[in-house]
Order: sequence, then C-alpha cells, then structure tokens
Amino acid sequence: MNVAAKSTLGSRRQPEESRAAILKAAVREFANEGIAGARTDAISAAAKVNKALLYYYFKDKEALYGAVLDQVFGSLKKNVYKALSDELPPPERILAYAGAHFDYIASNPLYPKIVQAEMMRAGRGKTVHFERIVTQYFRPIFTVVAETLRQGIARREFRNVDPANFIPSMIALIVFHFNSAPVMQMMTGIDPMSPKSLAMRRAAVLDFIRAALFTHPEGNVEDKQKARVSRGGSR
Amino acid sequence: MNVAAKSTLGSRRQPEESRAAILKAAVREFANEGIAGARTDAISAAAKVNKALLYYYFKDKEALYGAVLDQVFGSLKKNVYKALSDELPPPERILAYAGAHFDYIASNPLYPKIVQAEMMRAGRGKTVHFERIVTQYFRPIFTVVAETLRQGIARREFRNVDPANFIPSMIALIVFHFNSAPVMQMMTGIDPMSPKSLAMRRAAVLDFIRAALFTHPEGNVEDKQKARVSRGGSR
Repeated sequence: MNVAAKSTLGSRRQPEESRAAILKAAVREFANEGIAGARTDAISAAAKVNKALLYYYFKDKEALYGAVLDQVFGSLKKNVYKALSDELPPPERILAYAGAHFDYIASNPLYPKIVQAEMMRAGRGKTVHFERIVTQYFRPIFTVVAETLRQGIARREFRNVDPANFIPSMIALIVFHFNSAPVMQMMTGIDPMSPKSLAMRRAAVLDFIRAALFTHPEGNVEDKQKARVSRGGSR
Repeated sequence: MNVAAKSTLGSRRQPEESRAAILKAAVREFANEGIAGARTDAISAAAKVNKALLYYYFKDKEALYGAVLDQVFGSLKKNVYKALSDELPPPERILAYAGAHFDYIASNPLYPKIVQAEMMRAGRGKTVHFERIVTQYFRPIFTVVAETLRQGIARREFRNVDPANFIPSMIALIVFHFNSAPVMQMMTGIDPMSPKSLAMRRAAVLDFIRAALFTHPEGNVEDKQKARVSRGGSR
C-alpha cells in the first residue's frame, strides 16, 4: 500500500498493527455490547482507524466477529497444546492443561463474554462460525485431552472415567468462575477477578480434578516430585 | 372483573390461567429471542390474549421478564429445598440436591438460555432484577447446601472442602451440560437432550461429586443401602 492509499485509509501504522488494533477494539465492543449491539463505528473509533480500513481488512461486522472468535479460540488452542505437549506423566499433564486453560481465561477477562454469547447464538442456530470453531479448535483440543486421560487410565493413575463426560466436567469447573463472576461478586462482596480470588479458585479447580480423577489423590503431584528429589539425594 | 371487562381484555379464561399462559409464552420468547429481541406482540399472540391483558398483569416487557426470572428461580428453589429438607445423611442429601437441580433443568430446557442471558446482562451491569434474584433465590439455596457440606465435613463423611468454592464447582457440573448442548451436539452428533444422554450425564455428575467430596467415594450410597438391607435380613 503506498503512502497516498494509507493516508486515505486514515492510518500511518503498519497493516498488521492496524489489523491488531481493530481486533482488540472489536473484542471489547463485542464483549460489552453483544453481537447485535456492537457497532463498527465504535470499533473503528476505538482502534483509531477509519471505517474504510476496517472494511478493507474485514468484509463486514460478521466477518470481523468471526475473526474475533478465531483469535479467542486460536490462542486458547495454542496455550493448552503447549501445556499438553510437555513430556509429563498423565497426572501432571492433565493438571498442567487445566491450569493453562484457567490462566488463559484469567488473563483475557473479556473472552468469556464472547464465548457465552456465541454458545447462546449457536443454541438459537443463528451463527455461521460455529461449525468452523468446533472443527478447528474444540475437536482437536478434546482429542489431545482425551488421549492424556486414556494414558492415565491405562497406567492406573486415573480412575476409569469416560473422556466424553469427564472433559466437559473439567471445562465446566474451569470456565464457570468467569461466567458466574457477577453472581459471586454480589453474593460475597469480594471481587472474583482479584489475584487472590483467582489463585484460590485455580487451586480449588485443580483440587477438585485431582480428587475426582486420580486413583491416589492424596499423593499430591508436587509432594511426589519433592519426595523423588529427596530420595535421589539419599542414594 | 365482569364479563364486559373480560371480553375487552380478550380472554374468557380465569385470571390465573391467562397469567400462566402469558408467562409460559414469555419464557419461550425470551429464551429464543433474547431480552432485546423478545416482542410482547409475539408473547400475547402465543398466549392467545390481547396485549391489553398482558399489560394489565405485567406493567411492561421488563416487568414481564422479571416475572419470568422469578418463575425460573422460584421453582428451582422449591425443588432443591425439597431435596435438601429430607432427613438423609449428608452424603445422600448432597447427591439428592445435585440430582434434583439437574432434573429441574432437564425438565425445563428453555430455562438455561434465560439464565445465561441474565448472567451476561448482569456482567454488563444492565439488569434491574439481579440483586433481587441473588437475595431471594441464590443466597438461600447456597446457605442450605453449605450447611449440608459443613455437617458432612464434621461427620468426616466429606473432605474438608471450602463451601464457597465447592458449591460453584457443583453448580458448574450440573448446569454446563445444558449450556454447552449445541457444542456437544456438533462434536458428537448425539442429541445431548435425549433421555439416554441426560441419564448418562446425570450419572457422571453424581460420580464426579462423590469422587471429589466423599472421604469414602468407593462406598457407593446405593450399595450401602443395599448392604444394610441384606445385613438386616440375615440377622
């Protein structure tokens, strides 16, 4: 794009920078206003680009919303794959996955609103993005987590759970805190998104999963590692 | 109301019947169209009452929506109180609660959409009903479930969990299946609302809670009862 074109589109930034600024503003607008309520005017203003540039990168509001979903679920997949690819034994690996999933949402507090809205839209059969999201993100994540569960079951480190039921249960534990934050705030008067609340909830989620899944939940993962180190030292 | 007035309002039914018909139609409209999208025209048409009667019972769309929320959470409270009031030992009582909560949602498949929409609205600070719902329904339910947990902890039947964290975890397990039904449908090709899927999910939820909470999860509640009966017979 030459200087004249850039100037017409109202941005002096690099294309990737402008695109990222639009996406960032779009996440906030879709999270706060919903899909129907979101306005591309507000998004281009917040991103400090003119509307022509927004439509240059994203055909229309629906396409921009689709790109927001790809960002939300694409980064989730990247984060949980990283946690699951480590060469850890299944018990440590499943907790690493749950922790990474929790941390990802905690670091992106606007994302749960977008995910909830998309689930509701899917329930009403009104989304064009849903099948792509399931195929590109949900199914691959599910497959890798299920494989970890099967390995742990085969090694008798996990109870004989059904991954098709146990994975939704883990995800429920991980995401519910964020979806129910307004209730918890009003029930307890405590900010559920404060670092202290998040640390407590994260520990409770991992404890719950450990207790419900591990054949020896009392054999705490961290303790085991410590024990191994001290045994190694005494040999 | 005399015959002439009734005829003006376009209903030959008893007032309670008309009110119930409006509420039932409103549940469907709010669940399917969302709060912003719901139309009182559509509700009065579906309820077969004219709009004047709708506004006679409910001041405006917001008041009607508030009455829908009272119905959703009022009946939930009634159902789970019933399960919790039984004179059962804490392990049986907590599973009875979880089962009753699950069954309530399974029997009212439109309700999760309304609850999700209200949570999202609360997250955006745009609801006038939320504080009332928390005070009248959420807090009382929470208090009775927490009391059951504390009793079971004191009797060493439950692990020493924190009710403030454990109750949200149980609710997460109970409600997630319904909120994520569109995903599960697309992931598996199986209807998550079929009687078979619901029975499997219900069993998985109770198993997860038992494993995560009970100090002796392997001592299955039903088995214990059977054992007690057979021991009784052999004496």
